[in-house]
Amino acid sequence: MALDQVCIIGSGNWGSAIAKIVGYNVLKYPELFAPTVRQWVFEEQVNGEKLTEIINREHENVKYLKGIKLPVNVVAIPDVVEACKNASLIIFVMPHQFVRGICEKMKGHLAPNARAISLIKGLEITPEGMFLFSEEISRILDIPCAALSGANIADEVARESFCESTIGCVNVEDGNVFHKLFHTDYFRINVIQDHVGVQLCGALKNVVAVGAGFSDGLGYGSNTKAAIIRLGLMEMRKFGQTFFGDMVKNETFFESCGVADLITTCSGGRNRKVAEAFAKTRKPIEQLEAELLNGQKLQGTLTAQEVHEFLVARNMVTEFPLFNTVYRIVYEGAPVDSIVRDI
Amino acid sequence: MALDQVCIIGSGNWGSAIAKIVGYNVLKYPELFAPTVRQWVFEEQVNGEKLTEIINREHENVKYLKGIKLPVNVVAIPDVVEACKNASLIIFVMPHQFVRGICEKMKGHLAPNARAISLIKGLEITPEGMFLFSEEISRILDIPCAALSGANIADEVARESFCESTIGCVNVEDGNVFHKLFHTDYFRINVIQDHVGVQLCGALKNVVAVGAGFSDGLGYGSNTKAAIIRLGLMEMRKFGQTFFGDMVKNETFFESCGVADLITTCSGGRNRKVAEAFAKTRKPIEQLEAELLNGQKLQGTLTAQEVHEFLVARNMVTEFPLFNTVYRIVYEGAPVDSIVRDI
Repeated sequence: MALDQVCIIGSGNWGSAIAKIVGYNVLKYPELFAPTVRQWVFEEQVNGEKLTEIINREHENVKYLKGIKLPVNVVAIPDVVEACKNASLIIFVMPHQFVRGICEKMKGHLAPNARAISLIKGLEITPEGMFLFSEEISRILDIPCAALSGANIADEVARESFCESTIGCVNVEDGNVFHKLFHTDYFRINVIQDHVGVQLCGALKNVVAVGAGFSDGLGYGSNTKAAIIRLGLMEMRKFGQTFFGDMVKNETFFESCGVADLITTCSGGRNRKVAEAFAKTRKPIEQLEAELLNGQKLQGTLTAQEVHEFLVARNMVTEFPLFNTVYRIVYEGAPVDSIVRDI
Repeated sequence: MALDQVCIIGSGNWGSAIAKIVGYNVLKYPELFAPTVRQWVFEEQVNGEKLTEIINREHENVKYLKGIKLPVNVVAIPDVVEACKNASLIIFVMPHQFVRGICEKMKGHLAPNARAISLIKGLEITPEGMFLFSEEISRILDIPCAALSGANIADEVARESFCESTIGCVNVEDGNVFHKLFHTDYFRINVIQDHVGVQLCGALKNVVAVGAGFSDGLGYGSNTKAAIIRLGLMEMRKFGQTFFGDMVKNETFFESCGVADLITTCSGGRNRKVAEAFAKTRKPIEQLEAELLNGQKLQGTLTAQEVHEFLVARNMVTEFPLFNTVYRIVYEGAPVDSIVRDI
């Protein structure tokens, strides 16, 4: 059997941390994986030099993961077609807005048995429906696509802090291959067969974190916050099972992508932080985004809005009281303490 | 049908907070409950006066829940036989070491249809077996006994902060009655049929909190701590299902008594705090108990030891790596960072 050729699409903070893991892991299984990992890197100039050249000489992504050495078998390639040529294991780890365009370029260049895994955060929710990035990749490239998500901060993973992550993969054999590719002593992988739940958790947790941030901003105690987190977890599950049926498993919410990532997101994280500031100052969310996030959009409030429109279109808003309450507080001027009165 | 006569056995911090809730709730359902709630109060002198007399005059337990008014229909009674005479709903909320003695005194004095509910923390674990306090009460008094546990701090509940709690009750009809007795807008009750899981969670969570405290003490990030909490939750579940079979339900661990109480206990709480100090100072746990808890025993380390002896007797120590690692760090001098290396 031919060796699997691994290709990483993306080279930001998370992509670089993953490149380190995957680079070492392919060498552990020479009977399975080709020894070189190709990484598509969006070319940029850093101090007058090309980023790919710096990575290939210094074995460090000096722009997005400074101070962490990458294994020498990770090779940065600026051209996506060259990077993915005949590759059979494709790891997508890039901002979601570029997925479609990149996939279109890759079309027709992969190995016949290619399989992908998406590490892309979030999912597209519109009044018309929900679109998982794994499905988008699958559709355009006509290959199966798994998903990976968990309680993971790129810098901590890169420094080899202990944590866990979850891979959702329908095909058990592919799941085993991905386990070998990602699992280490400090980055513990559980493989489950629910790629939908894995991706849903990664998006919906941010809405719950906004609710948890309101609780912090109002000065509520840890039991109130724990209740909001728990109710949020149950609402995430209900949402998944309402709109994807039994594709979404109960057990998924006990995984790192579920309860653990939710706990982390509700204890640190920008969604919690901005929501806390909102509860304290009652400034509009746009103003806080400008003040606290350099104008970047907050994921949790955006997702709350998308979920709201999706639910309005189905006349199901009241079935999800926590999501609805977060929306009403941020966008309709409902009192912040609705977060405990209306859920 | 005769009205249910409610009797509360215990009058500490938690017993007083519960007396407030139950006192108001019986008045909401005059068709179900007798209007007076009897509370057995262990008689003490407070400023030269009997505590029961103060409670019955001031409607406040000035010793254990200062500043909170109790409903006037809660009547403090110093004699336990008088308190429980013909009572049909008995709420046990007292330190576990007195359960047996008090139950022996109550024997033969209850109404024929009496049912109990235990709010007692912890359970007895010896090398011979595990003994739930609900079972102990059931056995001595020959009545069914449910259990209540959740992410609840007495003072916050007394001040009407929003939180949730879980009642485990095998009999559905009794479960409905207990729901009416305890549920309020700010103290949300879910009734499940798993009284065993409810009590197990309340004991085992403290062992996990010791592990979480080690993580904090070592300066690990929130993703590492979230992984420890999640692995702990899964080990709590495995423990329950290994030793009680399918009496213990998966769903229980999604309830307030499960994931929510675990989150709170691992974010605040004395178990976490002392373990954090242990990781930082490496002082013996007894010394930290003396310094930080006025010599009181820490629940989590005690339970870790009991669980360890229980598992040793069954040759199953390695099946529960987190519980085992907490034990080995506290009692066998294992390095504190085993908490991420050995689980």
